[in-house]
Amino acid sequence: MTDTTPGWLTRDDLEEARARMPVLYVEAVPVRVDDSGEVTSIGLLLRIGSDGAVSRSVVSGRVLHHERVRDALLRHLEKDLGPVALPRVPAALQPFTVAEYFPTLGDTPFHDPRQHAVSLAYIVPVAGDCRPRQDALDLVWFSPEEASSPMVLNEMPGGRGTLLRQALAHVGRLS
Amino acid sequence: MTDTTPGWLTRDDLEEARARMPVLYVEAVPVRVDDSGEVTSIGLLLRIGSDGAVSRSVVSGRVLHHERVRDALLRHLEKDLGPVALPRVPAALQPFTVAEYFPTLGDTPFHDPRQHAVSLAYIVPVAGDCRPRQDALDLVWFSPEEASSPMVLNEMPGGRGTLLRQALAHVGRLS
Amino acid sequence: MTDTTPGWLTRDDLEEARARMPVLYVEAVPVRVDDSGEVTSIGLLLRIGSDGAVSRSVVSGRVLHHERVRDALLRHLEKDLGPVALPRVPAALQPFTVAEYFPTLGDTPFHDPRQHAVSLAYIVPVAGDCRPRQDALDLVWFSPEEASSPMVLNEMPGGRGTLLRQALAHVGRLS
Amino acid sequence: MTDTTPGWLTRDDLEEARARMPVLYVEAVPVRVDDSGEVTSIGLLLRIGSDGAVSRSVVSGRVLHHERVRDALLRHLEKDLGPVALPRVPAALQPFTVAEYFPTLGDTPFHDPRQHAVSLAYIVPVAGDCRPRQDALDLVWFSPEEASSPMVLNEMPGGRGTLLRQALAHVGRLS
Repeated sequence: MTDTTPGWLTRDDLEEARARMPVLYVEAVPVRVDDSGEVTSIGLLLRIGSDGAVSRSVVSGRVLHHERVRDALLRHLEKDLGPVALPRVPAALQPFTVAEYFPTLGDTPFHDPRQHAVSLAYIVPVAGDCRPRQDALDLVWFSPEEASSPMVLNEMPGGRGTLLRQALAHVGRLS
Repeated sequence: MTDTTPGWLTRDDLEEARARMPVLYVEAVPVRVDDSGEVTSIGLLLRIGSDGAVSRSVVSGRVLHHERVRDALLRHLEKDLGPVALPRVPAALQPFTVAEYFPTLGDTPFHDPRQHAVSLAYIVPVAGDCRPRQDALDLVWFSPEEASSPMVLNEMPGGRGTLLRQALAHVGRLS
Repeated sequence: MTDTTPGWLTRDDLEEARARMPVLYVEAVPVRVDDSGEVTSIGLLLRIGSDGAVSRSVVSGRVLHHERVRDALLRHLEKDLGPVALPRVPAALQPFTVAEYFPTLGDTPFHDPRQHAVSLAYIVPVAGDCRPRQDALDLVWFSPEEASSPMVLNEMPGGRGTLLRQALAHVGRLS
Repeated sequence: MTDTTPGWLTRDDLEEARARMPVLYVEAVPVRVDDSGEVTSIGLLLRIGSDGAVSRSVVSGRVLHHERVRDALLRHLEKDLGPVALPRVPAALQPFTVAEYFPTLGDTPFHDPRQHAVSLAYIVPVAGDCRPRQDALDLVWFSPEEASSPMVLNEMPGGRGTLLRQALAHVGRLS
C-alpha cells in the first residue's frame, strides 16, 4: 500500500509532515448554472467518515508535490464526481476565499483534528453527469435556499457549513 | 430609428444622460480555455469605428434600465460573437476590475471622449463557434503572448490595451 | 435649491434619468480591524427614511458624473461618518460584490422602489472617530455575531441585510 | 541552531518536507497609498541571495504550522520592514492571485529551484517608517511606472517580476 512515487508521502510520512507544516488543500463547490451563469443548485457529497459518521461536504483534497492547483482541482473533481462531470475549473487562480483548518478549536471558523490545512476555495460549475466514486456515497443537488438551511449546514462538520455559506454569498445566492 | 421601449433612450436622451451621469457598461474578455481552465487564447474584435479608424476591442456595451448585469453580458456576447458562441458567464458578479472611462484624458488610464463610462470587466470562456455580427468585422484569436505584444495593444484605443493586460494578469498569462 | 453644476442633476432630471438608466452607486461597509487586519466590528448607520421608518444601513450613495469611484467612496464616507473617520479606501477597485437594486421585487435579492441602482460594494476599515452627519442619526458598532443576527438584518430593508452578510462572508466573519 | 519548537522544522526536516509537499508561502507587495486609496509607490527589497546575486523582491516567507495566514503576513512584514512600518493587512483573506513556484522551469511563470512553493499574494499598504532588517539590504520605493520598467523587472528572479506586474494590474497601475 506504500506509494513510492516521488512527491507522494507514505502514511507515516504524511502524519509527520502534517504535524509540522500547513498542508495545502483545494476545495471546489460544485454548482449547476443557467445560461446566464447564475447558480441554480449546489452539489454536496454525502460521505461516511473513518469514524462512521455521516456528513456532507464539497469536493476537497490535497495538492501534491509538483502538482498545479488547477490539476489538483481536476483530479479531486474527477475522483469525487466521476469522469464525465465536465467541471469548468476557473480561468483565474484567485480563490473566493482561503479556509484555514486548525487542529485546535476556536482559532478560525474551520477545524480539522488531523492537521493544519489551508484550503484554496473555488466555485466550479459542472455541466455533465456526476457519478460519485471512492468513499463518497452519493451526490445530492440542493437549491441555494436548501443549501443554506440549518439542517444541511449542521451536517457539514469542521466549519464546512461556513465555507458553503461563503460560497453562496460570493455567488449572490445566500438567503 | 427612435426606440420608444421604456428603459431605452433616444439618441438625444442618451446624449443628455451621458453628459450628466456615469453610464454603466460591462466588458467581457472572450477566452478559450483548456480542460484545466487555463487560458490558451484571447479573442479580440476588429472594428471600424464611426470615424473609420480600425481598432481592436473586447466585447462591451451598456447595461440597460431594468437589465441584470449577467443579462447585459449575455446580450452583448451574443451581439458580438453570434448565437452559438456558448459563453460561460461567471457564477459570481465580482468583476476582476472596474474600468473608469473618463471623457477627459489623464484622470484614469481609460478614456472615452463620448462619456463617463464605468465598466465591470469579466473574463468569459467561450466554448462554441464565434461569428461576429453587427459592426464587428472579425474576431481574431491570439495567444496570451501575442495579445500582450505592443502591436496588438497599440490597436486598442482608450486604454483598452490596459484592460486587456489586466485581464491577462488576472488569469496568470501576462508575459 | 436647483444645482446647476455640470454633472449634477436637478431633482426632476434625476427622476427622469432614474427611469431610463441604471444608476451607479458605491456602498462601503465600515469596519474596525485589529493589527492583523481581522474584522472585529461593523458599523451600521441608523437612519430615518423619508417615510419615517427607522432602518439600518451601510454607507452608500451615487457616483457623480466625472467622479472616480474612489472619490465617490471618500465623499460618501465623509458625508456619513464625518471628517475624521480616517477611512482606508481599498487599493484595488475590484469590489467584493456588485449589488443590483431593482425597482421591482424578485428579480434580484435587492430592491429599491425609486430606481434601478447598481452598486459596487467595498469593505472599508475606518481608524478614526466616526461622527455621523446629515440624515444619519447614529452609528452603532456591532460584533460580527451581532451584525448577522436576525434582529439587525431585519432592520436593513431592500436586501441590505443580504449585502451585509455577503460582506461578513467575504471577510470570514459570517456566523 | 536547531529549532525544536513544535511546528518548526530543522534544516534537514525542511529539506525533506520541501521535496515531498508544496510549501505554503505568503507574499505581500508593500505599497504607499494616497487618501483615496490609490497606489502611489511600491516598495521593493534589495537582497543578496545565498549565491551572492543581487535581486529585488517583495515581502515573502513561509506559513508555519499552526500559524494563521494573517499572522504569517504580519510576521514577515515586520521581519522585512521593521517594527514601525504599520502595515495594513487586508480584511479579507482572498488573495489577488496565487503564485505557484515550481522547482522545474516552464510549468508555471514562477520558479524556485529549492522547492514547490504555493504563495498567497496580497497588496499591503504600509503607513509608517520602513527599516529593513535581516538579510534585506535596503527598501526602495518606486513609482508604478518605474516598478513596471524592464530594468526593475529584470532584477526580480523566479517570476517575481510577473507577480509584481500582476499586483500593479490588480490596483490599476500597470503602465
